[in-house]
Amino acid sequence: MPILVMKFGGTSVADLDRIRNAAEKVRAEVERGYDVIVIVSAMSGKTNELVGYVEGTSPLFDAREYDAVVSSGENVTAGLMSLTLQEMGIPARSWQGWQVPVKTTSAHSAARIEDIPRDHIDQKFAEGMRVAVVAGFQGISDEGRITTLGRGGSDTTAVAFAAAFAAERCDIYTDVNGVYTTDPRITSKARKLDKIALEEMLELASLGAKVLQTRSVELAMRYKVRLRVLSSFEQNTETSGTLVCDEEEIMESKVVSGVAHSRDEAKMTLVSVADRPGIAAAIFGPLSESGVNVDMIVQNISDDGRTDMTFSCPVDQVLRAERAMTEAKERGEINFHELIADTEVCKVSVVGIGMRSHAGVAAQMFKALRDENINIKVITTSEIKISVLIDRKYMELAVQALHDAFDLQGNDS
Amino acid sequence: MPILVMKFGGTSVADLDRIRNAAEKVRAEVERGYDVIVIVSAMSGKTNELVGYVEGTSPLFDAREYDAVVSSGENVTAGLMSLTLQEMGIPARSWQGWQVPVKTTSAHSAARIEDIPRDHIDQKFAEGMRVAVVAGFQGISDEGRITTLGRGGSDTTAVAFAAAFAAERCDIYTDVNGVYTTDPRITSKARKLDKIALEEMLELASLGAKVLQTRSVELAMRYKVRLRVLSSFEQNTETSGTLVCDEEEIMESKVVSGVAHSRDEAKMTLVSVADRPGIAAAIFGPLSESGVNVDMIVQNISDDGRTDMTFSCPVDQVLRAERAMTEAKERGEINFHELIADTEVCKVSVVGIGMRSHAGVAAQMFKALRDENINIKVITTSEIKISVLIDRKYMELAVQALHDAFDLQGNDS
Repeated sequence: MPILVMKFGGTSVADLDRIRNAAEKVRAEVERGYDVIVIVSAMSGKTNELVGYVEGTSPLFDAREYDAVVSSGENVTAGLMSLTLQEMGIPARSWQGWQVPVKTTSAHSAARIEDIPRDHIDQKFAEGMRVAVVAGFQGISDEGRITTLGRGGSDTTAVAFAAAFAAERCDIYTDVNGVYTTDPRITSKARKLDKIALEEMLELASLGAKVLQTRSVELAMRYKVRLRVLSSFEQNTETSGTLVCDEEEIMESKVVSGVAHSRDEAKMTLVSVADRPGIAAAIFGPLSESGVNVDMIVQNISDDGRTDMTFSCPVDQVLRAERAMTEAKERGEINFHELIADTEVCKVSVVGIGMRSHAGVAAQMFKALRDENINIKVITTSEIKISVLIDRKYMELAVQALHDAFDLQGNDS
Repeated sequence: MPILVMKFGGTSVADLDRIRNAAEKVRAEVERGYDVIVIVSAMSGKTNELVGYVEGTSPLFDAREYDAVVSSGENVTAGLMSLTLQEMGIPARSWQGWQVPVKTTSAHSAARIEDIPRDHIDQKFAEGMRVAVVAGFQGISDEGRITTLGRGGSDTTAVAFAAAFAAERCDIYTDVNGVYTTDPRITSKARKLDKIALEEMLELASLGAKVLQTRSVELAMRYKVRLRVLSSFEQNTETSGTLVCDEEEIMESKVVSGVAHSRDEAKMTLVSVADRPGIAAAIFGPLSESGVNVDMIVQNISDDGRTDMTFSCPVDQVLRAERAMTEAKERGEINFHELIADTEVCKVSVVGIGMRSHAGVAAQMFKALRDENINIKVITTSEIKISVLIDRKYMELAVQALHDAFDLQGNDS
């Protein structure tokens, strides 16, 4: 029988009624003829409760024990989902990560899945089981200890199972009914997309449209997994939600598919850095080692052998970045005149695979921002994305202006 | 280094402060030179919450999924205890049941421990770890599924580890400071015992003095594990609490050590049963298969080939017992005139290893009850225990009278 993966997030399994509601959606797919692998998150609030306990024990906690504690939330939901399906007369059983086993690296709290052997679950399907319920977000290391994949890791679990079991599709059930052209809280003109390319979703995910975890989209691209994002709280048909798929499945795409934003950014500038070979490595090596997630990087034109280096990072990493740069300067690895941090910026981006074959998108974007008198502080581009840093106070205005400029309210392709 | 097992029940680990308090007690033993194995229960209330979830999914739930869900509470405490000890600078790590592995039978929700391999934990002790924290109440079956040992199973886990690791002692930390001559809520004259024989504790445990799980005491007897019951909420010395030990360690024991009671009993009488060989098996076989825990059994003198058969069981199993008997009658396996259930009885017992060498205890007991005008409905005796069924309304009176009659308020031996 064809296999379908269905993933339910924390709000979709928040209590027994919602678990029953989710189980009804599983039942519908079983009745359509699928063998189903259900991936569940912890009941909403439970993981935060467990993280709170761990943080209460020690400021510098052992990540291995953290993982052992916080993974328990998903185990509870997996058992309850299996019980609920059984009560409906559907042959089901639960698996915890170590039982499959979901083999991961030993990078506790940020482990990566290395292998998902199929034999055990395949055998149970062959024996008549119709639904395998698997606790998301967790796995087991070579040392036999429980690992977790990082927050939102259940999306990644779901895509990894869809890849391992060659599933027809991986349906991500959440509390929104799909992917939108932009954040509907910013403009009521935001429109749900029927389809979006995986490449576009990857950019949107990494730009703060928190519908899917970035890693799960990367994994879906690598293994060509078809994803669908849809709501647990609506009656769905086979075409509900947003299909996140290979761009070849999208007949005619708009130049720009969506406008993304990321509110809490900071812009850091190292003023008057010696412009010599290796200087970028000398700057960004220590930042990376300090756990600073550098996003945009701009180097000014060199003048008399010195240059300014600008980069952006999440605003809550500014202190860490400043310490890393000061220490590197004290060690004599880099030299700069001063370090300026602008913590009042945000990032706004337009994303679309149509850009590849369509010139003038950047010009159109800059014009729309200029018409609103919004000053651009940093620009970066990729093949299918243009991002700008602007003052945070203009974020909503910029998103609305760009949504209008690229006519995203119109009908879907 | 000598090994000590320390077990903390749910109220002793109810929140982070209490876990820290328990960890302090572990630290004290580490500083005394012990390698410690800590067995933890779920934070109080958590197991009930999880059981509530399971019961909410289905009235007839799959015990394998039940075990997978309810075992998660202990996993959380184990991780938190390990983190708390680490924060104190003590090398510690946690184990879930399947990681040790604690090998059990497949009788889900009532599994029995079959083996606890030492090698993994021994290796970590050899590498410098001082405390192994193990989630109580759980294990793993041959099929690789999580099992649980039944409510209160963490006591059994603790004793099993003490036996497997040849521990010097197994300290059971709870919310009372020891074992008493009787329930202090019934008479303020109840006195804490410094020592009690394992045989006596076994009778008291099974008679409803809920300090220790019966199975854990059985296991301690079989493997000669020295148990100590003491409070998590007091400053303890090396002689605090009650030592539950081989009777040879108790120099001079009283004839009677304690008075136990069990409130919610029922007395069932099958009137006019055909008295033929095999009749007892025909009655008690179906009761056992229906899950009725028969306690006392009395058969009247036969008269004209017919007899009355009386037995006691927990009052909440009366309907089940009646159904089992009616069905056995319908199948023609037994024949009786009528079935009378008295649901207003309780059991009161006196327990003491000194009875073995001391005649007249029963007579003394019956006299004390007669002096209070309490009618005895059923009597059973063992080598070290005499139990009677009486009307429930006399329970407190009977306990107080017997406590006085055997002078249990006096100084400890």
